[in-house]
Amino acid sequence: FDYDGPSMKTSVPGPRSQELTKQLGEIQNVGAINFFCNYEESRGNYLVDVDSNRMLDIYTQISSIPIGYNHPALLKLMANANSLSTLVNRPALGILPPENFPEKITESLLSVAPSGMTRVQTMACGSCSNENAYKAMFIWYRNKERGHNIPSDEDLSTCMINQAPGCPDLSILSFMGGFHGRTMGCLATTHSKSVHKLDVPSFDWPIAPFPRLQYPLEEFTKENAQEEARCLEEVEDLIVKWRQKGKPVAGIVIEPIQAEGGDNHASPDFFRSLRNIAHKHGCAFHVDEVQTGGGSTGKFWAHEHWGMDDPADIVSFSKKLLTGGYYHKDELQADKPYRIFNTWMGDPSKNLLLAEVLNVIRRENLLEEVMRSGKALLNGLYELQAQYPGILSRARGQGTFCAIDIRDDATRNSLLLKARDKGVLLGGCGDRSIRFRPALIFKEYHVHIFLNIFNDVLAQH
Amino acid sequence: FDYDGPSMKTSVPGPRSQELTKQLGEIQNVGAINFFCNYEESRGNYLVDVDSNRMLDIYTQISSIPIGYNHPALLKLMANANSLSTLVNRPALGILPPENFPEKITESLLSVAPSGMTRVQTMACGSCSNENAYKAMFIWYRNKERGHNIPSDEDLSTCMINQAPGCPDLSILSFMGGFHGRTMGCLATTHSKSVHKLDVPSFDWPIAPFPRLQYPLEEFTKENAQEEARCLEEVEDLIVKWRQKGKPVAGIVIEPIQAEGGDNHASPDFFRSLRNIAHKHGCAFHVDEVQTGGGSTGKFWAHEHWGMDDPADIVSFSKKLLTGGYYHKDELQADKPYRIFNTWMGDPSKNLLLAEVLNVIRRENLLEEVMRSGKALLNGLYELQAQYPGILSRARGQGTFCAIDIRDDATRNSLLLKARDKGVLLGGCGDRSIRFRPALIFKEYHVHIFLNIFNDVLAQH
Ligand code: FES
Repeated sequence: FDYDGPSMKTSVPGPRSQELTKQLGEIQNVGAINFFCNYEESRGNYLVDVDSNRMLDIYTQISSIPIGYNHPALLKLMANANSLSTLVNRPALGILPPENFPEKITESLLSVAPSGMTRVQTMACGSCSNENAYKAMFIWYRNKERGHNIPSDEDLSTCMINQAPGCPDLSILSFMGGFHGRTMGCLATTHSKSVHKLDVPSFDWPIAPFPRLQYPLEEFTKENAQEEARCLEEVEDLIVKWRQKGKPVAGIVIEPIQAEGGDNHASPDFFRSLRNIAHKHGCAFHVDEVQTGGGSTGKFWAHEHWGMDDPADIVSFSKKLLTGGYYHKDELQADKPYRIFNTWMGDPSKNLLLAEVLNVIRRENLLEEVMRSGKALLNGLYELQAQYPGILSRARGQGTFCAIDIRDDATRNSLLLKARDKGVLLGGCGDRSIRFRPALIFKEYHVHIFLNIFNDVLAQH
Repeated sequence: FDYDGPSMKTSVPGPRSQELTKQLGEIQNVGAINFFCNYEESRGNYLVDVDSNRMLDIYTQISSIPIGYNHPALLKLMANANSLSTLVNRPALGILPPENFPEKITESLLSVAPSGMTRVQTMACGSCSNENAYKAMFIWYRNKERGHNIPSDEDLSTCMINQAPGCPDLSILSFMGGFHGRTMGCLATTHSKSVHKLDVPSFDWPIAPFPRLQYPLEEFTKENAQEEARCLEEVEDLIVKWRQKGKPVAGIVIEPIQAEGGDNHASPDFFRSLRNIAHKHGCAFHVDEVQTGGGSTGKFWAHEHWGMDDPADIVSFSKKLLTGGYYHKDELQADKPYRIFNTWMGDPSKNLLLAEVLNVIRRENLLEEVMRSGKALLNGLYELQAQYPGILSRARGQGTFCAIDIRDDATRNSLLLKARDKGVLLGGCGDRSIRFRPALIFKEYHVHIFLNIFNDVLAQH
């Protein structure tokens, strides 16, 4: 079903892409457009563009394509007449769900629920998933402060005019380098690049340092443990400081691997300690798996690598899961209806696709596949970095969720473009990293296709 | 194609709905669930539930179903093999759009662009549409303050830690009773019900009174003009006051008819004056047409009733348009790529449906239909309110976008339930209003079916 390799006809973007970019430029800012795609012709790990270039896709629409392009199982599902009604009648799920909704959620989202969680709220993208997870934490925290869930008259009247105590001065603690979305609540916890945040009003919320580890992790255990201890100490200090400021930390939000911020890893020990700190200080612990979830680390959730029975109070997801949403512990459920609510509350047509994606992952043992390809990929990166120590460093990864640092930003960008012209589509992250985000069907031989091309690019650099 | 009337087998929710609600209760808060639906069997203006009750739907999934359930044109489109690839390959539209994207947007969204606007940004729901519209206004305002678009080093470093000047103290002026969504930026401009806002931290932004008019509007022109003048004066005062506070108003956001807040209308004069005030004080003017847009007021956009060539700087939409997004004047486009951005930037599968919805609206002259049914509906409500002056008051509307006030909250809710048991599905809004939000295919004879049933309900009350 997959193509047998890249095939390049023009440099990228080719003439047709350039023409379309100009056309779209009349309607939108097109500064971020890479090229235009022919999704009909794209297949498996290969993205085909409108100039008939076929590229091995290791970026997968910002890490959001789970099982490749035009997977036969998904095409079959969408061609099925039973799917039609779901595609044309989008319900307000929070008030008028379809008959099969509990069953569909049970067989899809709940079948991969994180340890300790039996409840899930669907949403439509990563941002509304996190925004609503934050709201759930604020509501939980305030009810905890009150000792009951009956708001005072003052609460009810002040909240209408954005004032405390109804709109309390609570905060979410986040980490420097983290990315949790771009709507204004999420954005207050995002600290990866200034372009995301510049000119947008924000909240005075605490920001802790994320450990800056040395790689390979196994060679620097002592140094890394020290760095992690430093960050954990800072977290506790900030919680105390913000409580004293009158802006208590209702929740802590963190990615298992900071993705947009440069693929920064931390040890299972770090996360276990952080979870304990949250517990100790009465803060909810929110693990944002929007980019890490869905299998690319070799486990369905990246937090499974921590080996905990009770890893989090809230786990949010989107991207590869096609729908958005969050799992939560029972006590994080809002106490009244309509507190966590919006018109659509997700989209059953995405749940339908997700259920089939999960079937494919199981049927084709894709998590094992990811472990295998991930190992080949990371070993290949180690070898390249040994070969080109002046250009490459800090190869790191879990499953196929890998990254490597490039000498500087300019070199990184030039390598990305050269690789693309040779038929490999990659993405950057952080200041000077390249991130690898293939689909779950990326196999060992795809790794070798990539390594050969990347080796050529480096050799010619 | 439509059914010929309601058909009720049980009271609502029936036994099957109750069973499913219990089942879903294990997974989610189900306090807002009305009943479970059989979307396969639903058709046109009729929603069928899992207990085989068939109801005339005048609420349409919180005003989000444009041309009824299972419209043959949409079923045909989704059954077409050409749609398959769009359904299974959701792209990151901001970087890798499909070949037909400029063309699809041109023939769909741009074909209904508000006067003076040639640019549109797609998003995925009402909340991200408004959040990003706010960001666009903040970016525009700060560049205007700077006199150029080159941020200082201080801007760049402070924005990473949520501090001014990088995250400036700018504000959006909104109106009491307004609803603009529930993510945290939107929520700071939403003031319709406390349940939306309680316990969620917010921004200190100015909130102006929305005119509280007397209906029918033509009978109270003088009183209403006075009330509107009072509100406009307050708007100017707030703009000055917030500028003095160091939190200048970058933009004003308003609905052409406050929907969630109770279907509050204002005159074209009010909006024209408000638009001038925005201009005079250098604030962007954002018209939120998430609920009013798409034809139900008898014009495609409610702001068309104002008769202006230059009605707004930004117009946001979602719901009946199936996708989300916003139109904007050229100068409101962010100056650099990735400033207004997220993974998906909308969903081409929704654009596909929207293009066909617009075809149907034109082919079937649905806006004329709306004018006709709207007139019959409003006249019917006037008659009922004359007949039941102790229960009903303030009938009002534009097109089929109508509402009526009920004596009190308890009576309103009891009328809603009784009407539902007789086969008419309605929704509330504000403290004690019933709102009418039929699809665009709601015809005069549907109005009469509703009026007959509602009359019975009132008579038995
Ligand atoms: S905020 Fe998630 S879809 Fe709009």
